[in-house]
Amino acid sequence: MDKEDVYGLLRKGKTMILAYDQGFEHGPSDFNEHNVNPKYIFDIALEGRYSALAVQAGVAEKYHKKYYRDIPLIIKLNAKTKFMDGDPVSLQHTSVAYARSLGAIGVGYTIYLGSKYEQKMFKEFGKIVEEAHEHGMAVVLWMYPRGLKVENEIANDVIAYGARIAMELGADIVKVKFNGDLEGMRWTVKSAAATRVVIAGGNKTDELSFLKTVEKALQAGITGIAVGRNVWQSDRPIDFSRALNEVIFDGVGAEEAFSRMRK
Amino acid sequence: MDKEDVYGLLRKGKTMILAYDQGFEHGPSDFNEHNVNPKYIFDIALEGRYSALAVQAGVAEKYHKKYYRDIPLIIKLNAKTKFMDGDPVSLQHTSVAYARSLGAIGVGYTIYLGSKYEQKMFKEFGKIVEEAHEHGMAVVLWMYPRGLKVENEIANDVIAYGARIAMELGADIVKVKFNGDLEGMRWTVKSAAATRVVIAGGNKTDELSFLKTVEKALQAGITGIAVGRNVWQSDRPIDFSRALNEVIFDGVGAEEAFSRMRK
Amino acid sequence: MDKEDVYGLLRKGKTMILAYDQGFEHGPSDFNEHNVNPKYIFDIALEGRYSALAVQAGVAEKYHKKYYRDIPLIIKLNAKTKFMDGDPVSLQHTSVAYARSLGAIGVGYTIYLGSKYEQKMFKEFGKIVEEAHEHGMAVVLWMYPRGLKVENEIANDVIAYGARIAMELGADIVKVKFNGDLEGMRWTVKSAAATRVVIAGGNKTDELSFLKTVEKALQAGITGIAVGRNVWQSDRPIDFSRALNEVIFDGVGAEEAFSRMRK
Amino acid sequence: MDKEDVYGLLRKGKTMILAYDQGFEHGPSDFNEHNVNPKYIFDIALEGRYSALAVQAGVAEKYHKKYYRDIPLIIKLNAKTKFMDGDPVSLQHTSVAYARSLGAIGVGYTIYLGSKYEQKMFKEFGKIVEEAHEHGMAVVLWMYPRGLKVENEIANDVIAYGARIAMELGADIVKVKFNGDLEGMRWTVKSAAATRVVIAGGNKTDELSFLKTVEKALQAGITGIAVGRNVWQSDRPIDFSRALNEVIFDGVGAEEAFSRMRK
Amino acid sequence: MDKEDVYGLLRKGKTMILAYDQGFEHGPSDFNEHNVNPKYIFDIALEGRYSALAVQAGVAEKYHKKYYRDIPLIIKLNAKTKFMDGDPVSLQHTSVAYARSLGAIGVGYTIYLGSKYEQKMFKEFGKIVEEAHEHGMAVVLWMYPRGLKVENEIANDVIAYGARIAMELGADIVKVKFNGDLEGMRWTVKSAAATRVVIAGGNKTDELSFLKTVEKALQAGITGIAVGRNVWQSDRPIDFSRALNEVIFDGVGAEEAFSRMRK
Repeated sequence: MDKEDVYGLLRKGKTMILAYDQGFEHGPSDFNEHNVNPKYIFDIALEGRYSALAVQAGVAEKYHKKYYRDIPLIIKLNAKTKFMDGDPVSLQHTSVAYARSLGAIGVGYTIYLGSKYEQKMFKEFGKIVEEAHEHGMAVVLWMYPRGLKVENEIANDVIAYGARIAMELGADIVKVKFNGDLEGMRWTVKSAAATRVVIAGGNKTDELSFLKTVEKALQAGITGIAVGRNVWQSDRPIDFSRALNEVIFDGVGAEEAFSRMRK
Repeated sequence: MDKEDVYGLLRKGKTMILAYDQGFEHGPSDFNEHNVNPKYIFDIALEGRYSALAVQAGVAEKYHKKYYRDIPLIIKLNAKTKFMDGDPVSLQHTSVAYARSLGAIGVGYTIYLGSKYEQKMFKEFGKIVEEAHEHGMAVVLWMYPRGLKVENEIANDVIAYGARIAMELGADIVKVKFNGDLEGMRWTVKSAAATRVVIAGGNKTDELSFLKTVEKALQAGITGIAVGRNVWQSDRPIDFSRALNEVIFDGVGAEEAFSRMRK
Repeated sequence: MDKEDVYGLLRKGKTMILAYDQGFEHGPSDFNEHNVNPKYIFDIALEGRYSALAVQAGVAEKYHKKYYRDIPLIIKLNAKTKFMDGDPVSLQHTSVAYARSLGAIGVGYTIYLGSKYEQKMFKEFGKIVEEAHEHGMAVVLWMYPRGLKVENEIANDVIAYGARIAMELGADIVKVKFNGDLEGMRWTVKSAAATRVVIAGGNKTDELSFLKTVEKALQAGITGIAVGRNVWQSDRPIDFSRALNEVIFDGVGAEEAFSRMRK
Repeated sequence: MDKEDVYGLLRKGKTMILAYDQGFEHGPSDFNEHNVNPKYIFDIALEGRYSALAVQAGVAEKYHKKYYRDIPLIIKLNAKTKFMDGDPVSLQHTSVAYARSLGAIGVGYTIYLGSKYEQKMFKEFGKIVEEAHEHGMAVVLWMYPRGLKVENEIANDVIAYGARIAMELGADIVKVKFNGDLEGMRWTVKSAAATRVVIAGGNKTDELSFLKTVEKALQAGITGIAVGRNVWQSDRPIDFSRALNEVIFDGVGAEEAFSRMRK
Repeated sequence: MDKEDVYGLLRKGKTMILAYDQGFEHGPSDFNEHNVNPKYIFDIALEGRYSALAVQAGVAEKYHKKYYRDIPLIIKLNAKTKFMDGDPVSLQHTSVAYARSLGAIGVGYTIYLGSKYEQKMFKEFGKIVEEAHEHGMAVVLWMYPRGLKVENEIANDVIAYGARIAMELGADIVKVKFNGDLEGMRWTVKSAAATRVVIAGGNKTDELSFLKTVEKALQAGITGIAVGRNVWQSDRPIDFSRALNEVIFDGVGAEEAFSRMRK
């Protein structure tokens, strides 16, 4: 892996991924009349200058293949539904080869660390890394320490542990939660070593807070964000995406980027 | 996928699938002396101008291959029996390659959403989509939210969730139940995005009610129906099929189509 | 499949299969000094003019391959022992390719309907049908509704259900029990549609009763029998086999065939 | 299979296998300073004129390949440790192809009859028979009826049942225990039909008793022995092996062979 | 295997492996600001003249491939996290082929002896041995008797049992714990026969004690050590590594090697 571009996912050493797999994970209750339509999201990805859009194979096949070949695509290879309880597990339902044939530049996979099924996911993920890197595709790991054995998924040591395992398994980018503690995130970034760390967007919050959170995490050495609801549930997703661009790629302060948005 | 024809399963943007896998799912108790014979059903499919007939591989092999090569065929790749209780699961017993060699233009698969086995079915289905689309075959998903975690399988949000997952997994057509709520079905159709929605026929009801149900669901944007017992348990299946044709393909009202039947 | 001969297993549209896998299923306690020896059975198969002999791969390999290449062979691909209790399951231990290399014209497989493992057996059987038919081999299904969910394995609706599933899965011949009810067996034969129905011999009974049972079941439309202990536990197996031949292939009455035996 | 030599494992229709997998099954507590060293055993196999030596792949690779290519080798493909309790299972960890590449003329496998995992072992063993016979390799089955369902593993009917299943699955040689009952062993040999029966050596006993046991079992028609501890725990293993040779291959009486040893 | 060099892992018949997979097994809590960085470890491996460095695939891919092609590499093919409790299991997530493509000269695998999952690990390991040896790669087995059935993982008979199984499965080098008992370790080395024994470093202890432990174990015939924390948690890792080199490769006494360090 060339750290300078991570298979084309970086720009000035940073990345900004738009995630749109919530329809599978949470159900369409996350959506409104606009964002239920994948075309609406593809337009945001394009105009918002995202490094990549992360979707399931079905979305890629029916939209990207036909209308949006210019948007760099990450295809998520597993998913679970909100119906699952107990120890979480999510198994690969899309092959790396299929993701590639659909035009993806990278693949995504979720590991539920601490689940009694974690070995199954490590096994699948190891094979995915091998197949993806053989074909020059980036591997992004959604690292969720949500197994029943995990007491606090946003404890600093838990987040850092997840980032470390991501690196040892061969992920190029690992998506983790940011609990707001700068020193904790610095250690996570160090634990991840050559693997790039991006923070999750999570539930919708107010725009300025979100920009400030990103600004802070960048000081800890993260490479960027993987954001979904905070963007496509916004009533001005393009403006907000551009503010994020400024903070992440141009080093503009959160307050300033936010004030420019209002104009 | 070319939305205009969905691998040949659409006519004027609509579809009408005749389902005949109830002998496996429920047992021959659904049948009488006539419809127990697959030839009787193939004749209905042909004369009733169905877009496709959905059967198990054994039926395709012993009847379609020999007598009815002109009827577009969807082969169901899994099934379960009425003996199963607890969390439902139905695993693939027929390969896409075999379905293709038997002349099918599409394949069908059932997912029991909310079952603790749903990951197994997602995994099989993902591979089926990949193999089918590689060979230009349509994929129809019977989406049944019947896992123990599902409180009400015909709640609007549950139906819409199933339709969304069908799309994200790559189904071309998803078969769901219609609970009679027009707004609910509109949201399901939107959640399904580029995947076409057809409604299940279900238990035998009176002909006019069934036609009215179809007429109503069409207003919500569905693409058609997948019907079985309501047709082949009817004492005038061809007449009833033609009425369904008129409602679905020609936009004739239910009442009018029904009154024409009587003549 | 050409219904007229079912891959060579039919003569005048009927069949008579000699089964010899009881050493595996029940143990050698079924045997005496004579019939413990496979050669004794191969001789009966030959002189008794059976349509085929059904054995496990080991028997085929050590006897058929060497001494009896003229006897049409069906190789059973699974088996279980008398030690198993609880929900029954029997998994494939012999491949279709190996059965073919041993000279078999067909393969046999047992499904325990209503077992919690039935999905595993459906999955294996579906693949077996595909592989066997690809190479022009017949598929015979031993359909035993013996899962814990099955209240009465010889209820008419249960037998008919098993026969129906056999057909939908692609079996050429299904072996079921005959409970003595003619109408029930007629419905089973109809439910099986293009799949041929043969009845199981079961425990040793007196010769005349057995011949009468076969005569009666033939009136319901069955294609023949799969018999074991009633023949090779008989003290005049060749004579009895010839009587069975007369009843099945020549339409001779049970009483008459029996009286000829005595001479 | 040519019964006359069983892939080279027979001499004058008899066989004598030296088993050395106890280090895996029981631990090195079975060993002393001498026999802990595989070279010591290979020397016994060579000088004691054994038909074959049965070892795990690691022993074959590190000793046979390098020093002892003249000793006919059987590689055991599975094993379990003394730590396992409950229903026993032992899964294949070495492939037939690898055994072949290491120079083996045959493969060995253990089935725990009556275990709830017996289906898994039947499945693996069936595939092993197919692969081994395809390449002209002998298959030796260690048949241990030790599942929880088995009340008495050395009851005559249990031993005979095991031998029968071995034959139906395609084993060339089956290793069983001898409970001392001559008639019981005669029936076991008959139940095994074309499959050869060898008796297990078991725990170390005095030499004369062991020779007498072998002499007796030979009268029941067994083909020979698979012996381990009784030989390599002996303080004169070569002498004792030669006595066994005389009893098995030359028909010398146990007493006489034993008295010759003393000289 | 050529015992003289074990695929290049030996120098003067001895070996010294630096292990760095603790980030996965224990989490980054084992690390400080220096040793969290894989480059720091690669530098120690190089300057400390280790026979090989053992890491996960991700570390190999991101560091060895790019910066350190001169360091002999062993890639660990499995791992587990500190979250797992109950009977331990660790499944293969990296293929031998991938390890090879990343430039490894050997592969590592952990077996938890006495775990109810030990059969799964034996099965994976058997295949790994086959694949690795086919391509001339060394196989190092981390043998941890930590299953619930194991009362005392450092009892002499348990350690020796583990070493024996390693040999029978085909490991080239087995890593075991040393409980300080010289006679016990001598028996372990004998039980391992042609497989080389290295002792684990374990938790950080004082340098002189560690050197003395190594010196003592060498008297029992071990081939060397696999050390991690004792080296890279040291504040003078290169000096300490050189002392280890002297003790292991040059037969210098522990006290002397230690006193030289101080200078």
